[in-house]
Amino acid sequence: MKVNGHFSNLATSYLFTEVARRQREYTAAHPDAETIRLSIGDVTRPLVPAVIDAMTKAVAEMGKAETFRGYGDEQGYGFLRDAIVKYYAGKGVELAPDEIFISDGAKSDVGNILNIFSTDNIVAVPDPVYPVYVDTNIMDGRKVLLLDANAENGFLPMPGEEHVDIIYICSPNNPTGAVYNREQLTAWVDYALAHDAVILFDAAYEAFINDPALPTSIYQIPGAEKCAIELCSLSKTAGFTGTRCGYTIVPKALVKDGASLNAMWLRRQTTKFNGVPYIVQRGAEAVFTPEGMAQCKENIAHYRENAKVMGAAFDKLGISYCGGVHSPYIWLHCPDGMTSWEYFDVLLEQYHIVGTPGSGFGKNGEGYLRLTAFNTAENTKKAMERLTK
Amino acid sequence: MKVNGHFSNLATSYLFTEVARRQREYTAAHPDAETIRLSIGDVTRPLVPAVIDAMTKAVAEMGKAETFRGYGDEQGYGFLRDAIVKYYAGKGVELAPDEIFISDGAKSDVGNILNIFSTDNIVAVPDPVYPVYVDTNIMDGRKVLLLDANAENGFLPMPGEEHVDIIYICSPNNPTGAVYNREQLTAWVDYALAHDAVILFDAAYEAFINDPALPTSIYQIPGAEKCAIELCSLSKTAGFTGTRCGYTIVPKALVKDGASLNAMWLRRQTTKFNGVPYIVQRGAEAVFTPEGMAQCKENIAHYRENAKVMGAAFDKLGISYCGGVHSPYIWLHCPDGMTSWEYFDVLLEQYHIVGTPGSGFGKNGEGYLRLTAFNTAENTKKAMERLTK
Repeated sequence: MKVNGHFSNLATSYLFTEVARRQREYTAAHPDAETIRLSIGDVTRPLVPAVIDAMTKAVAEMGKAETFRGYGDEQGYGFLRDAIVKYYAGKGVELAPDEIFISDGAKSDVGNILNIFSTDNIVAVPDPVYPVYVDTNIMDGRKVLLLDANAENGFLPMPGEEHVDIIYICSPNNPTGAVYNREQLTAWVDYALAHDAVILFDAAYEAFINDPALPTSIYQIPGAEKCAIELCSLSKTAGFTGTRCGYTIVPKALVKDGASLNAMWLRRQTTKFNGVPYIVQRGAEAVFTPEGMAQCKENIAHYRENAKVMGAAFDKLGISYCGGVHSPYIWLHCPDGMTSWEYFDVLLEQYHIVGTPGSGFGKNGEGYLRLTAFNTAENTKKAMERLTK
Repeated sequence: MKVNGHFSNLATSYLFTEVARRQREYTAAHPDAETIRLSIGDVTRPLVPAVIDAMTKAVAEMGKAETFRGYGDEQGYGFLRDAIVKYYAGKGVELAPDEIFISDGAKSDVGNILNIFSTDNIVAVPDPVYPVYVDTNIMDGRKVLLLDANAENGFLPMPGEEHVDIIYICSPNNPTGAVYNREQLTAWVDYALAHDAVILFDAAYEAFINDPALPTSIYQIPGAEKCAIELCSLSKTAGFTGTRCGYTIVPKALVKDGASLNAMWLRRQTTKFNGVPYIVQRGAEAVFTPEGMAQCKENIAHYRENAKVMGAAFDKLGISYCGGVHSPYIWLHCPDGMTSWEYFDVLLEQYHIVGTPGSGFGKNGEGYLRLTAFNTAENTKKAMERLTK
């Protein structure tokens, strides 16, 4: 009996544990400090009424023999896939329902999609980055090439000469909040087509994009249907972090190494997955109704307003940052040459504000700190007043 | 770019497609035949009131800021893990909450658990069997050894001399309905301990066991905590096939190849999974209350009564079978030397009853046919009257 030896190559991340420990100790020592957490990577506003109504109705259906639902298709119900087809049509992207796979969230799919690729492939991942991209590849023993994302390239690395087989793109980016424009994504699609590579496009934050000129889907770039898989989630779009629903798009035109990746992913999902709860799929369907969309947009506008308040404060302070416009994340350049942890301590001890040290997201994150717009308007304003007064 | 080449070694199963096609064509040709499906592998009774009440309340909580829940722990909420600890205490099994991992169902975990094992391991799988055990190993390129389950061994293969690293046991079994007794499971645990192997024990049908002398958990066998992982589901226990909740138990005493399998599975789940919906976990918690348990047992008693009616009919007909006592499945030996498909056609054409040909579950399934107890009492009785009159 041998275990998967690649697991021993995983780095243990103490980032969030250490953030929590310092916060806890500070709060214990200063019980009156009224600490404000701008480190939260989770939504705080409740599910919108359209979603609640749909799920309440669905729960009642499950309690009656005539309307009870057992196993659904692993790929999701037609009503939800059709709703997503229409949502993409609104972006100018034409999809077929069987190119959409409903899942319990983008994190699961980011991990599981690698099952269809050879472990010999070379993978390109930006640094700093959402740690799941790197860890899932290490678990499989794939070679990971880090792409430098830094102030010089606006935290948006562009293709080089070196050959890679799989490319991770997260736009709007976690943790930097940077967003690729159409020309930049076109360069990546052209690279992928030339190198016979596949782009894994993480669109989890697409609903925060506020400029029609910026792509919200990789399929708005010609040729992407031949080289890209798009992973998306309702976690940030509709506050589904604890409700769990996402989707992955694998175009039928995506054929690599003589195989249809759509057929392979279908086989993976029908073998190792059994679909998303009916109740949750009805809730997700409601997100895409005109009423649900309007309500979700109100929540996003609330978070975006918080980001604006934060941006204005750092502008006033002369502290440079990335993100915060088409993203719930503000990526601060720590002032006075401080390291990530040094600035973390200053914010906590002098202003009672908790952030997330950028160094936890990769070597290029050193000297940066991430704040999020997910707290309440009141707390966000209060935190910024402490900093600017 | 290379895809995972192991996928091309998967056999394409046309079983359920072919069953559906023949049924559809027969029904179209004979619209008045009133065909009864005893092929259903899915529950038909609605969720019990205790579960509906809990989920209705949880949906309402998600709509209010004060009670809204975002990300929970990937491993599940404490309230549900504690409920499962108590459920196992009732079986005489002592577990710690952090040995229990809540998931979206046993099928996902059966597929995903292999991530922690080397692809060099040799795997033993009974034949006939739930096809997912074999397919998930083929996807990883592991060598699969089939264990003959047949009339001679009561469809319960026992350990041989040959060394294997991973052993699949499903008891009560899908598709045969056979159940291992304490002595038989002890022999498997002893084998696993002697061979440094891991048993993957699929307990999805444990709630159908109706004899306190038969084990409902592998951990009722001494030493199993050092060699076994148990996968379970609320799909058949509480009708959660479309609601999606299961759990996997990885004891902390389970150390192989110098590694804690509990720690490895925790790392796998925290990296590639984001937990089960809060609403569903509240529903699952309600299953384990005295009220919920009593209501779920009523449903199981209903299915068990169907199985009894079916068993009595085949006894009368002198057709031998396995299962149907501690299982919703009846595994018929096709009469008159018929093949699985020949008997399928006889049942469909002469009696308007749909079954599932045993040959679809492996080579030892040839000459057998699976019926299930998941239809209504009325339809089940009607079908059996057609056969016996």
